[in-house]
Amino acid sequence: MRDVAVIGVGINKWGEHWKTSLRDLAVEAALKALEDAKVDAVDSIQIGCMSGGLFAGQEHLASLVADYLGCAGVPASRVESACASGGVAFKAAYAEVAAGLSDAALVLGVEKMTDVGGDEATYTLGTAADQEYECYNGATFPGLYAMMAVRHMHEFGTTRRQLSMVAVKNHDNGLKNPDAQYHAKLTPEEVERSSMVADPLHLLDCSPITDGAAALVLCPLDRAKKLSGHPLVKVLGVGHATDAIALHSRKNLVRLDAVEKAAARAYKAAGVKPSDIDLAEVHDCFTIAEIMVTEALGFAKPGEGGKLAASGATALGGKIPVNTSGGLKSKGHPVGATGVAQILELVQQLRGEAGGRQVRKAKVGLAQNMGGTGGSSTVSILGKA
Amino acid sequence: MRDVAVIGVGINKWGEHWKTSLRDLAVEAALKALEDAKVDAVDSIQIGCMSGGLFAGQEHLASLVADYLGCAGVPASRVESACASGGVAFKAAYAEVAAGLSDAALVLGVEKMTDVGGDEATYTLGTAADQEYECYNGATFPGLYAMMAVRHMHEFGTTRRQLSMVAVKNHDNGLKNPDAQYHAKLTPEEVERSSMVADPLHLLDCSPITDGAAALVLCPLDRAKKLSGHPLVKVLGVGHATDAIALHSRKNLVRLDAVEKAAARAYKAAGVKPSDIDLAEVHDCFTIAEIMVTEALGFAKPGEGGKLAASGATALGGKIPVNTSGGLKSKGHPVGATGVAQILELVQQLRGEAGGRQVRKAKVGLAQNMGGTGGSSTVSILGKA
Repeated sequence: MRDVAVIGVGINKWGEHWKTSLRDLAVEAALKALEDAKVDAVDSIQIGCMSGGLFAGQEHLASLVADYLGCAGVPASRVESACASGGVAFKAAYAEVAAGLSDAALVLGVEKMTDVGGDEATYTLGTAADQEYECYNGATFPGLYAMMAVRHMHEFGTTRRQLSMVAVKNHDNGLKNPDAQYHAKLTPEEVERSSMVADPLHLLDCSPITDGAAALVLCPLDRAKKLSGHPLVKVLGVGHATDAIALHSRKNLVRLDAVEKAAARAYKAAGVKPSDIDLAEVHDCFTIAEIMVTEALGFAKPGEGGKLAASGATALGGKIPVNTSGGLKSKGHPVGATGVAQILELVQQLRGEAGGRQVRKAKVGLAQNMGGTGGSSTVSILGKA
Repeated sequence: MRDVAVIGVGINKWGEHWKTSLRDLAVEAALKALEDAKVDAVDSIQIGCMSGGLFAGQEHLASLVADYLGCAGVPASRVESACASGGVAFKAAYAEVAAGLSDAALVLGVEKMTDVGGDEATYTLGTAADQEYECYNGATFPGLYAMMAVRHMHEFGTTRRQLSMVAVKNHDNGLKNPDAQYHAKLTPEEVERSSMVADPLHLLDCSPITDGAAALVLCPLDRAKKLSGHPLVKVLGVGHATDAIALHSRKNLVRLDAVEKAAARAYKAAGVKPSDIDLAEVHDCFTIAEIMVTEALGFAKPGEGGKLAASGATALGGKIPVNTSGGLKSKGHPVGATGVAQILELVQQLRGEAGGRQVRKAKVGLAQNMGGTGGSSTVSILGKA
């Protein structure tokens, strides 16, 4: 296994891009990453996309994007694991470079979600759950996460205000990220006054529907030392795991087994522990998700994620800043792109290129990406080389 | 890189399975492969599926199937490259085992296509083409392949009867495959009298809509020697390439660049040449496709694939038997499963377990899987260990 570096990153401004197609979003981010990496060719492409078919009527996306990128011929695959598609695509590319099968791999994440109506978007996102046993019986993702939130509040005394503090913090961070979908300072009261979606989750507890793409270029560390003009960022470890996809099949509604397993694998591969992490990007598709994930990653004890969020420890300048990019909440959540953009944020932070949201002396960062209600998860740990 | 063996294969009878769900099709094939391999656990799952979203309202399929297989927790990814999804999933698993990242990998291919109507199926299959520039302007897959066929006839004098001979041969072979969708002996006249779909392609030039799954278990060759009760089958080389996805963007309508590149990579990795291949499974989604693919693989000179088919060389007992399984034409074409089932056929042949369709003294087999009109292709070469 070779050491692997991330030498290029690219992203477009996330939001509603009604005049830009799925392929153009992907190509734009890819070209930025290639330019950032100062390479003009790759020998492998992995694309994370959750549902090109339902959102945009386009499968076979890897060949399409390779072609429009001017790379027709290059082996290109699409990888899908619902909202963890980006993280799984990163893992696939990491494995190829580590194994010696690729010397320059492009990782793309992309989703074009706003070309369909709200009902279609809800249906499509429901394909990340157990459609036949959950969604056909009336469940939606806000409803599923609401059940997890209710149980978390019941078991651990997690409060409505603690949920709000996650949204407030992530929107504060998003104000400092020019590529974020939303730039709006929130108060806890505004979160709690926003429309009820599924009790206890209000509109401002939920991540939005977003169009966007993000891209990375990976190569062996030895090659990176010759190529890159940026401070070097190395992949320390990647973990991946699954869990029962349906919430009703879980042993426990308030534990995220896939995240715990993926984290254990990543920590072991990287040779680090939770207290070594200087910043983390986590999958805050709903505010309760960030609370549960910080527990699963070992930043808080089980049940104490709400307290951690309310304590300020996860804010910029806190002990373990979480979602400095603004997270899914404020940066947006083009589902297939999210896992790739999380790693992009780590790279920018570890390079010291994160501008107003820079975490001082950041040496080790962690990105956690999740599919469905936790049916799959990846955890990737990167560090300054 | 470690040597890799295929130690288990599983498939269900392909056809219209209105009472069996997508997940159950996948689990059935997977359990058969695990039983055949005599292993009860895997540490990696790769699933090829083209469009669980549009055909069955289900993405996040890898987690779903891992769960229903009793393997929740195991890292599981879905890989998609239209009708080449199965071949690309095999490649991903091969890379993991070869690189030392997995010691037992399950490869699954599955598609459930008959739960939607004909219009929806045509739309969904169109997502393998350039939907915005080809299908929205009226093209369908039979139409696209018909254009390729017309050009092939014009340039090389390929005849209507040569197309028919591909269908006749593959249905002859399918009669000997109990898992094939269709068991019907055809005459060339019957092919030519069947309904016109897109001139010059008749109904019996086209592969069908199919429900089905296929599965393989891969492990390092060293481990296989201890485990398997079957004659050992080794992966000799895998190639993968892309091409412009839209037919109008190709330099040439009668050359399949992705197949040629994937084949060159596979031949090089395996250290063999076309004349070393004892049998091949190729992507005969339409009769013209088999003719063009045999040329791209080097079994015939450019333009002479029609003559090769009509000569009997590709029939059982011929110089280079092609599609002994019945091919997509007779065995069926559950798009995500096809690439996996092609490799299953090679394994059965190389083990000497192919029954009435056994190729005598088969030592080296090749499987070629293709997405769209050739926008992507994999070529995998296996041999007796």
